[in-house]
Amino acid sequence: MTVEGKGQLRGGIDLGGTKIEAVIVDGDQQVVGQARHPTPTEGGPQDVADQMAQAIQDAAKQAKVETSGLLGVGVGSPGDVDERAGTVARARNLPGWEGSFELAKALSDKLGTEIYIGNDVQVATQAEFDLGAGEHYDSLLGVFWGTGVGGGLILDGKPWLGRGGAGEIGHMVVRLNGAHCPCGRRGCMEAYAGRAAMEARARREADKGVKTDLFKIMKQRGRTRLTSSVWAHALDQNDPLTVDLIDRAVEALGAGIASAVNLLDVEAVVIGGGLGVRFGKPMVERISEAMAPHLFNDDRPPATMVAGLGDLGGGLGAALLVTDAQHAHTH
Amino acid sequence: MTVEGKGQLRGGIDLGGTKIEAVIVDGDQQVVGQARHPTPTEGGPQDVADQMAQAIQDAAKQAKVETSGLLGVGVGSPGDVDERAGTVARARNLPGWEGSFELAKALSDKLGTEIYIGNDVQVATQAEFDLGAGEHYDSLLGVFWGTGVGGGLILDGKPWLGRGGAGEIGHMVVRLNGAHCPCGRRGCMEAYAGRAAMEARARREADKGVKTDLFKIMKQRGRTRLTSSVWAHALDQNDPLTVDLIDRAVEALGAGIASAVNLLDVEAVVIGGGLGVRFGKPMVERISEAMAPHLFNDDRPPATMVAGLGDLGGGLGAALLVTDAQHAHTH
Repeated sequence: MTVEGKGQLRGGIDLGGTKIEAVIVDGDQQVVGQARHPTPTEGGPQDVADQMAQAIQDAAKQAKVETSGLLGVGVGSPGDVDERAGTVARARNLPGWEGSFELAKALSDKLGTEIYIGNDVQVATQAEFDLGAGEHYDSLLGVFWGTGVGGGLILDGKPWLGRGGAGEIGHMVVRLNGAHCPCGRRGCMEAYAGRAAMEARARREADKGVKTDLFKIMKQRGRTRLTSSVWAHALDQNDPLTVDLIDRAVEALGAGIASAVNLLDVEAVVIGGGLGVRFGKPMVERISEAMAPHLFNDDRPPATMVAGLGDLGGGLGAALLVTDAQHAHTH
Repeated sequence: MTVEGKGQLRGGIDLGGTKIEAVIVDGDQQVVGQARHPTPTEGGPQDVADQMAQAIQDAAKQAKVETSGLLGVGVGSPGDVDERAGTVARARNLPGWEGSFELAKALSDKLGTEIYIGNDVQVATQAEFDLGAGEHYDSLLGVFWGTGVGGGLILDGKPWLGRGGAGEIGHMVVRLNGAHCPCGRRGCMEAYAGRAAMEARARREADKGVKTDLFKIMKQRGRTRLTSSVWAHALDQNDPLTVDLIDRAVEALGAGIASAVNLLDVEAVVIGGGLGVRFGKPMVERISEAMAPHLFNDDRPPATMVAGLGDLGGGLGAALLVTDAQHAHTH
């Protein structure tokens, strides 16, 4: 059985805190089907799994294939992922998902195909390395700037996972005794740059009477949260609180990413995630400028780029899990 | 020609900012000769090379061998090391050593044996990994706490050098817009924990009239600088400024090392360097406690240990460069 040729369709699901992105990918890594569903905000893991199954079925329908006809479906998941057992625990951005849940089994029962689960950030980093902005490098730091700030590492062409928990760039300390982080600690990069922390601060400032259009824009766009697009619109309008909070975020990202580069001296940094992709190149240039004053080897900064696969990186990376598993089987 | 057996003597030189430590090591990694010379504070690279040659000749005399009879001499050097060319540039802690100097050639002319040059911190990390506190681990962060704060990485059993400049843990940012660092940047871990930065701050505080016995102890011990032993004696006496500055250093080390662990999830952290070795286990325990509140995976902190080879790690690691090169030749 060959894995590469056309017609060998694979599925990929990026399970995020706000949305589920599903893709069907052919043997040439082209997206031939795509669907996006909101992540359930109530219920529990089974409800999330049902919505994931629905999303990949919609994508499969677009690609004119039954899910049981797929080579397999990969999943990029937050939380503690056990790849072998196919379980996910402590996915704290998802409803009622503190304990361990057999996600692979729940999905394979519904979809009739093999399920492969990986860490969301690592999977997206691998996709950027294999297919995206990191293609021409051997060492890469992926920074996923969204609700939180996640990191993925490729060193010498291979993922670096440490003891399974590597990549927590969002919880590098950029200001001792600094701002409170959603993780419960203080001074983490994510405490300044994570969308959840930024929203919490915006609400506190607004409650204190600071004027901002952030929440007006949120309502106009029919949202209940400050999504990446709400932030982008508010920044376009030069809303002063938004400008201030984005300045803080960029400063923290610059220091944190530069610290990681000082430690690892990687060739390239790829910035993705909801905010990273939404703000795009001009913001990545600002982050690169914010890194500069902290880089020890300042005569040769790493290449710093926007994620080349945009919003689809997570789904494409998840689909790569299927390819990798097939290779492992057949080689 | 075998490399391992007894009688196959190698030399190792650890070139530090204040002292040159030379060892002769046998095939069982036992130290059979040893000498310590002060690093010249005036002149230029040739003067330093002359002093290094003198040190290894003294160590060789102790081991009853001519330097020309050694398998080779390894050197752990600060600055920008070009291993292949055998040159060192920008060794800014050493006198007049801004440009590139052919250190390997200068030494081999005097010693009549092959010279192998490596980065001082990386060489010491490798020694801890091969022979010292890191022996039982596959991934390791070496932290060398002395005049500056250097870092070395072993990932999956192999040194990680990045593009040649990895390991600058001392210049990870722990406080945005924080204290001025000797490197010219702000908020680096080294700005709080490096002995040079601590001494500069102690002098400023003393000039402002803050009472301290640090400089009295320095003079009593016949020093012109606040060496590790001066700091250790002042801390033993509970000198308040010393207590305060060591507290700041430990806090910064805790945050910076924890940040590195959050990014890399290594199994073990080994703390060496002049201050690390001098203060030893009780201080490493304090650093470990200071790391705890910042560790993302706080249920499984890395093993955190004092460098097992003490002051000799740099010289032993340098001697390992000879073994490695011989292996590369004969295999």
